Amino acid sequence: MALGEFDLIRRYFQHPLAQPGVHAGVRLGNGDDCALLQPGPGQVLAVSTDMLVAGRHFFPDVAPRALGHKALAVNLSDLAAMGARPLAFVLALALPQIDEPWVQEFAAGLLALADAHGCALVGGDTCAGPLNVCITVFGELPPALALRRDAALAGDDLYVSGSLGQARLALEALRGRWRLPEAALVRCRQRLERPEPRLALGQGLRGLAHAAIDLSDGLLADLGHVLRASGVAAQLDVPALLASPAVGPDVRALALVQPALALTCVLAGGDDYELLYTAPVAARSALERLGRELGLELSRIGRIVAATDAGPQCSLVDERLQPYALPPGVELKGFDHFA
Amino acid sequence: MALGEFDLIRRYFQHPLAQPGVHAGVRLGNGDDCALLQPGPGQVLAVSTDMLVAGRHFFPDVAPRALGHKALAVNLSDLAAMGARPLAFVLALALPQIDEPWVQEFAAGLLALADAHGCALVGGDTCAGPLNVCITVFGELPPALALRRDAALAGDDLYVSGSLGQARLALEALRGRWRLPEAALVRCRQRLERPEPRLALGQGLRGLAHAAIDLSDGLLADLGHVLRASGVAAQLDVPALLASPAVGPDVRALALVQPALALTCVLAGGDDYELLYTAPVAARSALERLGRELGLELSRIGRIVAATDAGPQCSLVDERLQPYALPPGVELKGFDHFA
Repeated sequence: MALGEFDLIRRYFQHPLAQPGVHAGVRLGNGDDCALLQPGPGQVLAVSTDMLVAGRHFFPDVAPRALGHKALAVNLSDLAAMGARPLAFVLALALPQIDEPWVQEFAAGLLALADAHGCALVGGDTCAGPLNVCITVFGELPPALALRRDAALAGDDLYVSGSLGQARLALEALRGRWRLPEAALVRCRQRLERPEPRLALGQGLRGLAHAAIDLSDGLLADLGHVLRASGVAAQLDVPALLASPAVGPDVRALALVQPALALTCVLAGGDDYELLYTAPVAARSALERLGRELGLELSRIGRIVAATDAGPQCSLVDERLQPYALPPGVELKGFDHFA
Repeated sequence: MALGEFDLIRRYFQHPLAQPGVHAGVRLGNGDDCALLQPGPGQVLAVSTDMLVAGRHFFPDVAPRALGHKALAVNLSDLAAMGARPLAFVLALALPQIDEPWVQEFAAGLLALADAHGCALVGGDTCAGPLNVCITVFGELPPALALRRDAALAGDDLYVSGSLGQARLALEALRGRWRLPEAALVRCRQRLERPEPRLALGQGLRGLAHAAIDLSDGLLADLGHVLRASGVAAQLDVPALLASPAVGPDVRALALVQPALALTCVLAGGDDYELLYTAPVAARSALERLGRELGLELSRIGRIVAATDAGPQCSLVDERLQPYALPPGVELKGFDHFA
């Protein structure tokens, strides 16, 4: 193997955005013991880290360009859920061997998404080992406008962006548990492998939304995190959810033949990388405007209520607030990496 | 396995330093999509990341407490080399399975070092996979005082802190290539498994030193990084180095029977986590004072000179600046994870 660690970094991971003077928030890019970052005046630094492991978060034979994209996308999604603007990231990469075409494709997918969001690759670490991608991402935002998980209030509306369940549907198809038409598989796989972090939405929600979270574990599981952090409960209006654009065409088609699987995909799919957020009723028209501006569907799917004796949990209800009974066979377990 | 991902984090990785209001630089600790960090007035954020892989950076059966210590120590060492003060870190941990006693020991080693340096664990990620520890650390410093690699000037003295080579010597012994007396093995293994990041030294060097780097790859390899970044050359005074406290008692004893291996350990050992730095001649007495205050040996081992046609490289010289010939058998290759 002729190419060493330092050559690899020089050849594929030197990012023009990290060069001196290019990016206001980057005082010093990669090549030193540390990078130096400076949030703008009145801003704090938002930090998140996510590790992707072969066989657990992606198929070992995944296209490297898609993997590069997704590894950064899932981190940017955390910035989006906080309302932060991306600034920079560091990459730690363990590779079984140096396969130059693979690394080139991985870097291309990674840096294309970084460029699209002005997020500079400012440092990292490369070593030999079982394939593992660990990214830590940095964003900036005024601290008072952070969209925290613990800020949901009784009376808030509950929203979700975009559409849910396609990534899970692709996973079911790739694992051979469900057969999808070719065109649907291509669309769903795109959602699984190349999620688009909702950064513009997250920043647009500053000052409008109360709490927000990104959907990585599944709608009900991630909603549970918000409810516990905020000490409130929720009523999820299942008919409103099912009638909304949050159920896209492929999942809607599935629902006609296999409703339990469709509900599993929507309620507990995982890997959606949409935003779930709460906002006061007074923000409804501003949120409609925001959705139109961004060309993004924002679906109102329920409400936040005071926690009862049953604790900070989510009830499934119909349009008359009566309990909604799911058909048998829906799997509602949130995604737990060790479960 | 009864314990899930979220239980694991709640039980072992909730850090009192990351609770609200405890740490001035931590606006929001873990539990949300992002942590929020705020460097002090006039300070920027220094960021570094290091990944440790089983079988490559540590023996798979390493004591978990030592591994927790080392995973953070090697990251703090990068902050030290920049002159930064530790603020916070995030941890991404892939575990083959949840072994509670193992995790408890790992967390104890990790958080004891974090507490010793006021460095708050503010977030992370846990997943199933081949054992892999990835830490990203954050420090703060006034940007004009950063100890950069590209700041060495011709005429500077060249220094190294503490002592070199024991970690490599322990590695040779553990791999069965060299037999060490039991007491020496215990001492050397301590250096390999529980390095102490030179944070007080790094901050003490602000305004005194020009360039600095931490020694992870070996003295000559890391010196090479400084020389290339600064566009200068160096003369390493080998007799001065060998007479100095930079060669500690165990390596000194080795030199009597196996001089080539002793020189390999000192010049290319790796895993030393001492600081190598350059400083103007005018700083000598201030540096002597600093070493006394810290109770740390600071050895002057050469000088920075203008780069010649041969480029930014290091010459080995004797006290009369004549070329110093190493005995046969010294291995000078810098550590490359893919070599």
